[in-house]
Amino acid sequence: MELIPKEHFTIADAKRGDIGNTSKQYARAFFENMNFDAVTVTPYMGEDSVRPFLEFEGKWVILLALTSNKGSSDFQFSPQGDSGLPLFEKVMRRAQEWGTPENLMFVTGATHPGKFEEIRRIAPDHFLLVPGIGAQGGELAGVCRFGLNHDAGLLVNSSRGILFAGQGEDFAEKARQAAVEIQQQMAQVLSPFLR
Amino acid sequence: MELIPKEHFTIADAKRGDIGNTSKQYARAFFENMNFDAVTVTPYMGEDSVRPFLEFEGKWVILLALTSNKGSSDFQFSPQGDSGLPLFEKVMRRAQEWGTPENLMFVTGATHPGKFEEIRRIAPDHFLLVPGIGAQGGELAGVCRFGLNHDAGLLVNSSRGILFAGQGEDFAEKARQAAVEIQQQMAQVLSPFLR
Repeated sequence: MELIPKEHFTIADAKRGDIGNTSKQYARAFFENMNFDAVTVTPYMGEDSVRPFLEFEGKWVILLALTSNKGSSDFQFSPQGDSGLPLFEKVMRRAQEWGTPENLMFVTGATHPGKFEEIRRIAPDHFLLVPGIGAQGGELAGVCRFGLNHDAGLLVNSSRGILFAGQGEDFAEKARQAAVEIQQQMAQVLSPFLR
Repeated sequence: MELIPKEHFTIADAKRGDIGNTSKQYARAFFENMNFDAVTVTPYMGEDSVRPFLEFEGKWVILLALTSNKGSSDFQFSPQGDSGLPLFEKVMRRAQEWGTPENLMFVTGATHPGKFEEIRRIAPDHFLLVPGIGAQGGELAGVCRFGLNHDAGLLVNSSRGILFAGQGEDFAEKARQAAVEIQQQMAQVLSPFLR
C-alpha cells in the first residue's frame, strides 16, 4: 500500500467471509501484509466467519448489510421468522453482539435512501459505508438526512462515477472533476448539519 | 495453475460475490486467467452478484447454501417470511432460476448430515460440494445415504484433514495416508450404491 499515503483511511472492498481459520488468514493478509485500515466482509456464514476480522487492534470490519445492487432485494429484505424483521436488520442486530462502534461499520447502499431512518434506528452509533451514489444513482441528500449522526457517521463512496468519468487520455482530469463535484455536493448537503 | 494437471477438476474456494461489474472481473480472473473449473460464490448480494459467474461455458458456480461452520446457524436456518422455509432453502430455490444442474452446484456441509434428505428434495439434480468431513467432523455415511443421486452428485471435500495431517518433515507422507483413508472410507460407503 505504498501508493496511498497513510494519512488516508484505506478500505479493501474485498467482501470476504469464510470458515474461521480462513477468515483469520484473510484478515492477516489485508490488515498486516497490506496494512489496510478496513475490509468489507459478507455475513452469510455467520459469527465465526466475521469475528477473526474484528480481532485486529485499530482495524475495522465493514459488514455487508443492505447493499446497493439490484440483487439486494433477493434475500436482504426477506422477513425473518416470527419477528418479521428483514434479513439485513437481523444481520445488523446480531453483528452488534460481535463488534462495537469502534471496530464495526455497515455497508448500506445509497440506492435505498428511504431506509436510512430505519437503519439509524437499528445502529445509531456505527459508521455506515454508503456506496451507490454516482454510477448507481443513489440519492445523497436522502441518505444524509437520516444517515448522519453525532459523529457524522457516514463514509459516502463513489467508485465507478470517479474511476470511469473519462475513458481516454483525459482520464485523470475527468476523475478529478467528478471527485470535486461530489465533494461540493457533500459540502452543500452537510452545511446545515455542521453549523 | 500449471501445478495441477488439467485432468483434475479444480475448484477455487474463494467465496466471491459482488456487484455485477466486479463479479464479472472475479469470474474472468478465476475462469480465464487462472483457468479454474469452478469457483465458490456467496449468495448474500443476490442474482446480479451470481449471474456473471454462470456465463462461462463449461465452468461451474458452487453457491454457498448450508455451510459446514458453526456460524451457519446464525442466518442460514432462519425461517423466511410466510413460507417459513430456511434461508439456505430460499437460496437454493432462487438460484435454480439462475443456473442449471450443468453449471451450478451447492455447498452443503457434512456437519449437517440430517439435512441431506431435505437438501436432495430441494435440488435433486445438482451436484453438492460437501466440506466438513475430517477436521470439522462431519459424517460421511449420513451424507451419502441421502446425498447421492443418479449421477453420484457429491463432491466430498477434506482440506485441513489432509493438508495438516502432518506438521513436520513427514508432511507429504501423512497427507497421503489421510487422503488414502478417506478414499477407502468413500469406497466402502459407496459400494452398496455402485453395484
